[in-house]
Amino acid sequence: MARYAYVNGRYVRHAEAAVHIEDRGYQFADGVYEVVPIIHGRMIDEDPHLDRLDYSLRELRIDWPMSRAALKLVMRELMRRNGLANGLLYMQVTRGVAPRDHKFPKGAKPALVITTKNMKPTAPALVESGVRVISVPDIRWQRCDIKSVSLLPNILAKQQAVEAGAFEAWQVDGKGMVTEGTSTNAWIVTKDGVLVTRRATHDILNGITRQAVIRLTNAGSVSFEERAFSLAEAKAAREAFLTSSSGHVLPITRIDDTMIGDGRPGPVTKRLRAAYLDYIAA
Amino acid sequence: MARYAYVNGRYVRHAEAAVHIEDRGYQFADGVYEVVPIIHGRMIDEDPHLDRLDYSLRELRIDWPMSRAALKLVMRELMRRNGLANGLLYMQVTRGVAPRDHKFPKGAKPALVITTKNMKPTAPALVESGVRVISVPDIRWQRCDIKSVSLLPNILAKQQAVEAGAFEAWQVDGKGMVTEGTSTNAWIVTKDGVLVTRRATHDILNGITRQAVIRLTNAGSVSFEERAFSLAEAKAAREAFLTSSSGHVLPITRIDDTMIGDGRPGPVTKRLRAAYLDYIAA
Repeated sequence: MARYAYVNGRYVRHAEAAVHIEDRGYQFADGVYEVVPIIHGRMIDEDPHLDRLDYSLRELRIDWPMSRAALKLVMRELMRRNGLANGLLYMQVTRGVAPRDHKFPKGAKPALVITTKNMKPTAPALVESGVRVISVPDIRWQRCDIKSVSLLPNILAKQQAVEAGAFEAWQVDGKGMVTEGTSTNAWIVTKDGVLVTRRATHDILNGITRQAVIRLTNAGSVSFEERAFSLAEAKAAREAFLTSSSGHVLPITRIDDTMIGDGRPGPVTKRLRAAYLDYIAA
Repeated sequence: MARYAYVNGRYVRHAEAAVHIEDRGYQFADGVYEVVPIIHGRMIDEDPHLDRLDYSLRELRIDWPMSRAALKLVMRELMRRNGLANGLLYMQVTRGVAPRDHKFPKGAKPALVITTKNMKPTAPALVESGVRVISVPDIRWQRCDIKSVSLLPNILAKQQAVEAGAFEAWQVDGKGMVTEGTSTNAWIVTKDGVLVTRRATHDILNGITRQAVIRLTNAGSVSFEERAFSLAEAKAAREAFLTSSSGHVLPITRIDDTMIGDGRPGPVTKRLRAAYLDYIAA
């Protein structure tokens, strides 16, 4: 079956899907994106993703390329054409095409690109044994709350992780505090048993899975604090895990060369993963 | 006459010039660029620009899309096809097209796009009366020495300047020190008559015009220091100016609401502008 992408009003074969070289996404990283997970043909947290898209667009003063209702129809039509049952729907909105000039162009029409990707669930081995993260300095800009395509520092850090044989890189700010992964949020269960994740300010992306897990946490009995934690505190933690749209809740059993807890996924992590899987199955 | 762009091996009509939606420049800002000024049909500082392209590519571990000699031929052929006498040649190299994944793709071929633009010299009025800059916090990432297309903070700051009726925004770091403009380097002549521009570390782009002006400075008699200066020192300065490939040496006569010197372009600025214009005419 041919795979399609949606590009500025047309469904086109993925292999031929193109944007103009003066699309500001290409020349200035002047755009935002969302990745919506699809499970058994259903979108997970579609509205929270579109709410965040709206936030990112408003912060950058980019107009919606179409109404939210129309966008929802396009998303569904692309899923239908691609027979997407399990995977991701990626959408990107940029400020549009204009002769290259830093300032916002007048009259440019926002560009919209949507693709889909089949993807299997996270390999059971990763869930069972947990993954390793490395720590790297956070060298990103100061508006990481905007889900922009300005991802160069993220890919450099992720590449460092891959070359170190790790799953992800945790970025550490100038004060020694963990901000987040390159495409995931960071969590620990402290040595005193408190579940901690960083408050969503301009320093991190407010992950949709992060928000869902916070709701599940509030419903549960574990003690929870939304605050920054240091790399040292993380290495001394009982448990650590990451959250993301594609990985859900994934245990971390090693940070750099430090084993976390007894080196196996901990009970709070397992409980939250199970609760999150129940939530998305519901 | 039709206008052409060079895109991955082909000369195509500019209006139809396109890249794939999964070009990593579009999805990750995973690319770099150079802008070479053209005056009377000649490239200015072609080799320093290509040297810096090489630096940016090496820092990001992106291969050259072709040999330097071949690139020079393509640049010339595009100029010829477009009849470019005065303006800019823009070239962008990205890591290439690959299914979206943060880590570096295996086997992707670097993408190369080149465009040209006719441009008139800076309006005499700007040179005669000088321009105004505003100050904004520098919220960029920590590798501004790489000329990457990750320019979102730059365009936001430039837009702020435009809306404030200013020509450019000077970005100020967490210590109150000026780093640079959004697409220009920052210079002052202090109240004691010392010419100052910031040292080229990871905090700023090492402008080609900046480097040329430093050489001219060394040949002259003015006292010169390469060091950071604060916004306060700039506002108390005798003169201020900016350098860039398209604006050359441009006097600044107001920073925020503070008049610089007597509000008119100063003698050091004028001398350096004249010397730079001589240099590029030579």
